[in-house]
Amino acid sequence: MDNKLIGACIFGQSGGPTAVINSSAYGVIRTALDAPEITNVYGAAHGIVGVLNDELYDLGKEDAHELKLLMNTPSSELGSCRYKIKEESELKRIHEIFEKYDVRYFFYNGGNDSMDTCQKVSDYLERVGYECRVVGVPKTIDNDLVGTDHCPGFGSAAKFIATTVAEVYKDVHVYDTGMITVIEVMGRHAGWLTGAAALAGQNGAYAPDFVYLPEVPFETEAFLQNVKKTYEAKKNCLVAVSEGICHHDGTFVAEAKISGTDGFGHAQLGGLAARLAQAAREGTGAKVRGIELSLLQRCAAHLASQTDIDEAFLAGKSAVECALAGHTGKMICFTRESAGGKYKCGIAYEPLSVCANKEKKVPRKWINDAGTYVTQDFIDYALPLIQGENGRLVENGLPRFARLKKVRAVV
Amino acid sequence: MDNKLIGACIFGQSGGPTAVINSSAYGVIRTALDAPEITNVYGAAHGIVGVLNDELYDLGKEDAHELKLLMNTPSSELGSCRYKIKEESELKRIHEIFEKYDVRYFFYNGGNDSMDTCQKVSDYLERVGYECRVVGVPKTIDNDLVGTDHCPGFGSAAKFIATTVAEVYKDVHVYDTGMITVIEVMGRHAGWLTGAAALAGQNGAYAPDFVYLPEVPFETEAFLQNVKKTYEAKKNCLVAVSEGICHHDGTFVAEAKISGTDGFGHAQLGGLAARLAQAAREGTGAKVRGIELSLLQRCAAHLASQTDIDEAFLAGKSAVECALAGHTGKMICFTRESAGGKYKCGIAYEPLSVCANKEKKVPRKWINDAGTYVTQDFIDYALPLIQGENGRLVENGLPRFARLKKVRAVV
Repeated sequence: MDNKLIGACIFGQSGGPTAVINSSAYGVIRTALDAPEITNVYGAAHGIVGVLNDELYDLGKEDAHELKLLMNTPSSELGSCRYKIKEESELKRIHEIFEKYDVRYFFYNGGNDSMDTCQKVSDYLERVGYECRVVGVPKTIDNDLVGTDHCPGFGSAAKFIATTVAEVYKDVHVYDTGMITVIEVMGRHAGWLTGAAALAGQNGAYAPDFVYLPEVPFETEAFLQNVKKTYEAKKNCLVAVSEGICHHDGTFVAEAKISGTDGFGHAQLGGLAARLAQAAREGTGAKVRGIELSLLQRCAAHLASQTDIDEAFLAGKSAVECALAGHTGKMICFTRESAGGKYKCGIAYEPLSVCANKEKKVPRKWINDAGTYVTQDFIDYALPLIQGENGRLVENGLPRFARLKKVRAVV
Repeated sequence: MDNKLIGACIFGQSGGPTAVINSSAYGVIRTALDAPEITNVYGAAHGIVGVLNDELYDLGKEDAHELKLLMNTPSSELGSCRYKIKEESELKRIHEIFEKYDVRYFFYNGGNDSMDTCQKVSDYLERVGYECRVVGVPKTIDNDLVGTDHCPGFGSAAKFIATTVAEVYKDVHVYDTGMITVIEVMGRHAGWLTGAAALAGQNGAYAPDFVYLPEVPFETEAFLQNVKKTYEAKKNCLVAVSEGICHHDGTFVAEAKISGTDGFGHAQLGGLAARLAQAAREGTGAKVRGIELSLLQRCAAHLASQTDIDEAFLAGKSAVECALAGHTGKMICFTRESAGGKYKCGIAYEPLSVCANKEKKVPRKWINDAGTYVTQDFIDYALPLIQGENGRLVENGLPRFARLKKVRAVV
């Protein structure tokens, strides 16, 4: 079989940004630029929206050094979108654009929704007999993609969270008067990132006292009892909670009132961490503080794990290699090979259908029975992913991100 | 004059922690341990409270390597306090403890309240004829101490803020749907830290659109107009505000209602950033986000400026040298020598009375007329202080902080 397919490629980014999604971009772009079969490398402005709008950048016109700086530039450099394809007319339009630019390779970098987009594009093009190879590149700090051992973006967010928890631990233990601190971590449906807070304990006694994941129903009374008991014993209590913790009935705690502790009877503007901290104050009289890690946990490229950066690049590079080898309708997945106990990341191709529209949660057995902490299995899983200090470029004492020209593509 | 004074020293830390206060600790401890005149080096647990409670650590018993790791360990390692001396009996007690341990040197590391403590101790001991040399070591992320060009701790917090603003800028500009983002920065009375957000623009177009300092009265309507106009023009607006911004009548915006935009009529749990962002949503319909940098800006040792670390160490070392040279009742101050346009930090001794209980604000002329941004003079002042990447020790992909034994002192 001659797998050679000559034509242009489009690369797009979709969903929430991460600290390393641009490393995957560089993996795709660099490999594609170097591939003889690929005639032009186009970047879609704001993912599939840029394809629909015929807004493409000619990435062959970029400076090689600036492109390489994508390795340490956070967020989606080409712009992102949250756009779900709903109608056949959209797929027809995409096909039209692909014809116009003679696009034979489509690489899409995102989470489970983006894999759904990939799947639809791939299915449609096959149906209409337009030859084009479609490969998905995984990305999400949430680490909830099915089919892959872990996701590019998770390791860096986990490293930021663990480092920050260790630093905050030091900070809140400074006064003899004590403190109750609640740190709110991203991850609406899966607790991978919140669990990463426990990694803070690896180099000393800086771990949080409790870690609440969305996989286990949250019981406000038990939470308050735990915090109170710990505060009374240690004069301090540090808790990490997922933004996605839910009551038994499935409603988000973030959207509900902390019963009995505020009497306002309407939605609060304050974040979950602030409200849980306030609730914990009642009955303890402790000084409290709620901290929301907010966007910082997904864009802190300055603290990105080199393992994650390298693997994100590898995922992008592998996507191009996968397509060049003749595959289509696949997502790049990571496997874990633990030869002699040493972590090693491998590559596999999984059908997009395995990955699209699903969520991988933290296994219940990796959470303790009480639902208040992760187990050693979780630590062993996550710790290798935060290894390696990145060698980002710093100028003026500040990060030096890539500066692309973004020259509009013309045919 | 023979300046030789033989005896023990006590070192204590007070006030809010910083990323580099322990570098000053190491500067004092290392220099004192090496000084033949100083017989014993004691650390006070929780600052002056540890002196009053006779709770001292014998720092001569610590491992030299662990002590050195203080250079990259955030927060006050010996514990801190917020304690103001109010009564003569307390000074008498301090004198008693000093007699007990034959303390002839007292080094106190903190902000303007701590300098007040230094002053009182110094005055009292002089009055009762007990020979002891008292020297203050400055510390505050707020950068508001009088008598010194800048304060240890400020440069690192400024570097964290500027880096984070650049990263968040990248993140919030990713969607074509746009966003209004408000970032809340510490500094209740002085806007040095909030001004540092503007440094994010030094390596590219990542600066916030507006920077609101507490030095200029905050006008809610003008703020909303500015944000709205910018959002309409750019589909995006990024604002940094000080937690300490005040209305014309001097009341904190953080404590007031955003008039007309919430109708709740009672104190809000939500932070200032979230509330300003919500207010900005009215009339724009924009997606909004409020981010509070919270404790992260003062404990992020992983991003501490090496300039700041080195200077913090120098301040501690200089305090011991100052005392050994026969001085007392002084605070170590930084001078700025700009030989040939190149930044250089020098050391001066100022009387404690010059520094205690005062606040240095950002000069009005370093803020634009509209009160919405800092000037180039501010940038030129702050930029040298965030230079230098620190060479902290990392183990397991996580910071390796100092682990002291904290052996209780006995005589």
